[in-house]
Amino acid sequence: MALIEPRTLKGFRDYPPELMIPRERLIDVARRVYRSYGFAPIDTPALEYSEILLGKLDDEAEIRRQIYRFQDHGQRDVALRFDLTVPFARFAAQYVGPNPGQIPTPFKRYHVGTVWRGENTQAGRYREFMQCDFDTIGTTSNAADVETALVIHDLMVALGFERFEVRVNNRLVLNGLLDQLGLRDRAAPILRVLDKLPKQGRESVTRELTAAPPEGVGLAADQAVRVLALVETRGGNADILDRTQQEFGTSPLVAEGVAKLRELLAVAKTTGVPESRLRIDLSICRGLDYYTGTIYETFLTDKVGIGSVCSGGRYDNLAGLFTKQPLPGVGASLGLDRLLAAMEDLGLVPKVATPAAVFVVQFSPERLGDYQRLARDLRAGGIATEVFTDAKKIGQQLQYAERRGFRVALIAGPDEFAQGVCKLKDLAKREEVTVPLAELVVAARRLLGLG
Amino acid sequence: MALIEPRTLKGFRDYPPELMIPRERLIDVARRVYRSYGFAPIDTPALEYSEILLGKLDDEAEIRRQIYRFQDHGQRDVALRFDLTVPFARFAAQYVGPNPGQIPTPFKRYHVGTVWRGENTQAGRYREFMQCDFDTIGTTSNAADVETALVIHDLMVALGFERFEVRVNNRLVLNGLLDQLGLRDRAAPILRVLDKLPKQGRESVTRELTAAPPEGVGLAADQAVRVLALVETRGGNADILDRTQQEFGTSPLVAEGVAKLRELLAVAKTTGVPESRLRIDLSICRGLDYYTGTIYETFLTDKVGIGSVCSGGRYDNLAGLFTKQPLPGVGASLGLDRLLAAMEDLGLVPKVATPAAVFVVQFSPERLGDYQRLARDLRAGGIATEVFTDAKKIGQQLQYAERRGFRVALIAGPDEFAQGVCKLKDLAKREEVTVPLAELVVAARRLLGLG
Repeated sequence: MALIEPRTLKGFRDYPPELMIPRERLIDVARRVYRSYGFAPIDTPALEYSEILLGKLDDEAEIRRQIYRFQDHGQRDVALRFDLTVPFARFAAQYVGPNPGQIPTPFKRYHVGTVWRGENTQAGRYREFMQCDFDTIGTTSNAADVETALVIHDLMVALGFERFEVRVNNRLVLNGLLDQLGLRDRAAPILRVLDKLPKQGRESVTRELTAAPPEGVGLAADQAVRVLALVETRGGNADILDRTQQEFGTSPLVAEGVAKLRELLAVAKTTGVPESRLRIDLSICRGLDYYTGTIYETFLTDKVGIGSVCSGGRYDNLAGLFTKQPLPGVGASLGLDRLLAAMEDLGLVPKVATPAAVFVVQFSPERLGDYQRLARDLRAGGIATEVFTDAKKIGQQLQYAERRGFRVALIAGPDEFAQGVCKLKDLAKREEVTVPLAELVVAARRLLGLG
Repeated sequence: MALIEPRTLKGFRDYPPELMIPRERLIDVARRVYRSYGFAPIDTPALEYSEILLGKLDDEAEIRRQIYRFQDHGQRDVALRFDLTVPFARFAAQYVGPNPGQIPTPFKRYHVGTVWRGENTQAGRYREFMQCDFDTIGTTSNAADVETALVIHDLMVALGFERFEVRVNNRLVLNGLLDQLGLRDRAAPILRVLDKLPKQGRESVTRELTAAPPEGVGLAADQAVRVLALVETRGGNADILDRTQQEFGTSPLVAEGVAKLRELLAVAKTTGVPESRLRIDLSICRGLDYYTGTIYETFLTDKVGIGSVCSGGRYDNLAGLFTKQPLPGVGASLGLDRLLAAMEDLGLVPKVATPAAVFVVQFSPERLGDYQRLARDLRAGGIATEVFTDAKKIGQQLQYAERRGFRVALIAGPDEFAQGVCKLKDLAKREEVTVPLAELVVAARRLLGLG
């Protein structure tokens, strides 16, 4: 029979143990942090009616061309989800509400799930990737916005980062200025242009703001200057807020935005978040018209170029497509696979292909029961332990153990069993100690630095 | 704008927190047990070339009609995976081997993933469900078969079950008898009929074994008697093996199968697995022609009717479709969603909608920083804590807390802050204690029974 060529689809990838072990760790850490704040997990189907997933998008939206859409067995028009936000909106419209049996608000949920987009593949971009979202819906309270920043901070710390910056803005500030300038109806195109500021620079952005439509937004030169003066306000957090208040604070929206950012900084300070990790940046706007209040982006100091690894913001109405019930909320999304790629680049991902620490050599096959019993003791002591399956030469077995990344090998043959001991070999240091079987767990924990 | 009706596709379901919290727990436990034995995680894409997923199936296979198959943007013929075995075979063919850079054998992997089948929907059956597979490939050693039984046992215990039974068989035993009877070439149809024994009973099975093809298998009456005598051997584990050895042991295959089962029982005993949880059952055969050695099924004593919740076996060649490299192996699959449904029925799933234990009432909005600081202390002490987002009436806040399933509420207003204390309210017992803020974590841990 002819063989079928084993291969994955373009833009899709396998996760072998060396990648899957750190990926599972990232997911675990994210879940633990979300849970520690009371966010509860949900899941929704990968497949939905296309009508539901596409409802929001205008005909020109890029995502329309990227979505995996087809007819199922029952001739239903279905599609694979391309994000977790639309499914959450659908979910919230179905289950969240004030009545008995409904999920009450505020509803804090997290969702870790795979999404699919048939994008043009580039380096580090895949057509299947994982998102880790958390949101608080059903409240307009700034307390939820403040907490979102704390969650992002704790998440980055728990993931092992020390050098990062959560940048925060509030859309109200810019909206206030646009109101004063009589430009509120052009907020969306202005945001789209301002979003290019970091990449294209001030001159290019000024040109696009002042050029006549449809190439540009058609602002007067002095309007463009005012807008850029606002978003480019630089300095310490307090400076930025003080100067914005002075220069633009006659607008009630600006004042409200500044007050909300001040509260965020004050609470963060009280809870012990280092000031260097939270930065007011009036230039971030995330392009999307969707956000209406606080906005978050998160950058790795040593890897700013990869862009924000955790972004989000406040929105006025999550589920307007599906329900008349207004559901304001705030949340953010961890770009898990982007972060994993960055961690690989930064050398933060150890090359280990096994989740177990101890490797038990199968010296005497008739002792399999004893090997599994010793392994069981180690497992009960919190040490994952693999017993080798075949009684190959010891050298071969140890070679396998080193190749997979085990840290300690346990060796016991007839002599050792007769004396009630075993050998523990540190595979990195190539040092061996003999320990009584009764003290095995303590000795192994010590060798592994588990105290 | 007209609203879009929020709904899921037939056969698909949402997981709200009450279901997702126990589901995440099951997954966590399964992963922890697999890892403790040295199984490493992998992941593969949900979408594959249809050729790869369908390669194994004959034209009549039911799964062909159930598979979600379509053309992607590049006109590729693609499909959603319907199990984790075929993707693992493809993965193994691509990456597992003896050369540098390849994954060495034995390769022990686990894979937790969603699969899709457009089955006719029945109670408790969904078109999207999660599988938790573990396998050891690249070895024919019985040590791997023995370990598979230990893993299943530990998994069930870790999931919280005490009353369960892992039933074990070895396909060699029946194959040996069929050899002796000259029926080896009819093994597949015989297995298919024997698989119906628990549901349809002895008479019906005898009729089908002896009826002429195509209705039956066409065995002679005395052949059917011999086959049924073997598979219906009853008694204690040692009895069954002794009698099988006596009556059928002249067949070398029977003798080998019995010896392997004996080793499995001996190792399980040495490692401390209670005898009542491991039962030799020569009647289980899992219908599939695919298995060639040890076979496993797992039943909940209090819920036998739902069928096996963890099943598997040994196979000769995992990836013959994709590679000439022989990859024998052994493994099993935990039916996660079936188990979750059974646990719901047995009342083993608490109705809790929050992963957090402590609820902080927002008494004074200007104290938000202090509430988050106290919550942070509790989180650092291992207690997940939610701060309420809105300064609503305390009664309303406590009602929310009870509805979500929080266990303890923390209440602190101006009086408490002035005295450096807070109140902790046990929401089930409706009892309140006042504790100094400096002793908050210890007091909360005590209230929650965390010692």
